[in-house]
Amino acid sequence: MKRRLLLVSNSTLHGGGYLTTANVKRVLFVPYALHDRDAYTKTARDKFSTLGYELDSVHEAQSPVEAVRRAEAIFIGGGNTFRLLKSLYDNEVLTEIRRRVLEDGVPYMGSSAGTNVATVSISTTNDMPIVYPPAFAAIGLVPFNINPHYVDPDPGSRHMGETREQRITQYHEETDTPCVLGLREGSLLLVEGNTASLLGTTKARLFTRGKPPVEYDPGSDLSCLLTR
Amino acid sequence: MKRRLLLVSNSTLHGGGYLTTANVKRVLFVPYALHDRDAYTKTARDKFSTLGYELDSVHEAQSPVEAVRRAEAIFIGGGNTFRLLKSLYDNEVLTEIRRRVLEDGVPYMGSSAGTNVATVSISTTNDMPIVYPPAFAAIGLVPFNINPHYVDPDPGSRHMGETREQRITQYHEETDTPCVLGLREGSLLLVEGNTASLLGTTKARLFTRGKPPVEYDPGSDLSCLLTR
Ligand SMILES: [Ca+2]
Ligand SMILES: [Ca+2]
Repeated sequence: MKRRLLLVSNSTLHGGGYLTTANVKRVLFVPYALHDRDAYTKTARDKFSTLGYELDSVHEAQSPVEAVRRAEAIFIGGGNTFRLLKSLYDNEVLTEIRRRVLEDGVPYMGSSAGTNVATVSISTTNDMPIVYPPAFAAIGLVPFNINPHYVDPDPGSRHMGETREQRITQYHEETDTPCVLGLREGSLLLVEGNTASLLGTTKARLFTRGKPPVEYDPGSDLSCLLTR
Repeated sequence: MKRRLLLVSNSTLHGGGYLTTANVKRVLFVPYALHDRDAYTKTARDKFSTLGYELDSVHEAQSPVEAVRRAEAIFIGGGNTFRLLKSLYDNEVLTEIRRRVLEDGVPYMGSSAGTNVATVSISTTNDMPIVYPPAFAAIGLVPFNINPHYVDPDPGSRHMGETREQRITQYHEETDTPCVLGLREGSLLLVEGNTASLLGTTKARLFTRGKPPVEYDPGSDLSCLLTR
């Protein structure tokens, strides 16, 4: 499998350096997670320009599917995960993105919501369900789920809603639910073929249904996640 | 309209005192938001017993719809809002709960997820989409939405996900979206017919599409929300 993914926890646009090894000159940007796609594209285009890349936005293409078919690299930015996934379905690009990344080896970068939609489903997003997508199933570039912006419980909090860990535990009360990797701010997952490694500056917390959670240090090999 | 609602921000079971004015002896409990319905029912039953009420759980009834038809009062507890709403649809009780509350004046209490499902839709829940309900439209006992456990931005936070206010603003970027009442921990909304008032110890923050948010003190009359 040719898969090359960079899945970032937060919504910043870094990760451009990742492309230098891939002989990429143009990046296809997917701005669907934010309401103002033009403004979002301008921000991303300016950023990628300073890194030496041209950026096309899928929302500016006459045919979004055709744009995906021609893409040298794909970057899906953050925002609202439900809005993003619904737009991927509405524009019928979800299957084509999967095919390009898994079969053609087109590099994929995702940040925040763009990381959520790269996984099995968006069931462990932190976002509000502001629109109704036709399914929660996502692009499925990896066989597990991610919770971006993972936060540890705050022992001093008087807040009575569930902690993030409790929310993920509720997900695993449902049957046939995959692992969930809690990616804290500052961590990212690099997937190359059947190898996955945790990069960045913070630990990640892995939740497996029916087992206690496990912490992984930056630099850890997480390839085991790809074979489940 | 006979509607009598007590909508609580947090997941505690208080609010039993509310029933004393309604000549109620038995409460129908809806434990669908938690995975272990038996344990949840036992907790609720013990609590309501100390307040002098019998408690039946809808999940113990042969016919959930029939149980709703006979209910003297309905209490929907907190947990995961998606799981709760899906179960309300799967058990075909959603429409019957609406009818009993709006037409027959059966008192309704909701806490957390039970408050979310009393509104127009669950689009402003904080919960993760762990299961896929057939719609996000909810019971619709009031013509607005609520965000329970509302929290203010933490200026010291290094967290890069959206603040709660930003999430609600994203909801209002979508067309035809109703007001959202941000109910902080410790506040509750009492609705009697066409009158609504904010009770509890904390302010509430009202978000209206295209307008700046407004703060309301405990004791405020929020009846205006019912006529939009
Ligand atoms: Ca987000
Ligand atoms: Ca909840």
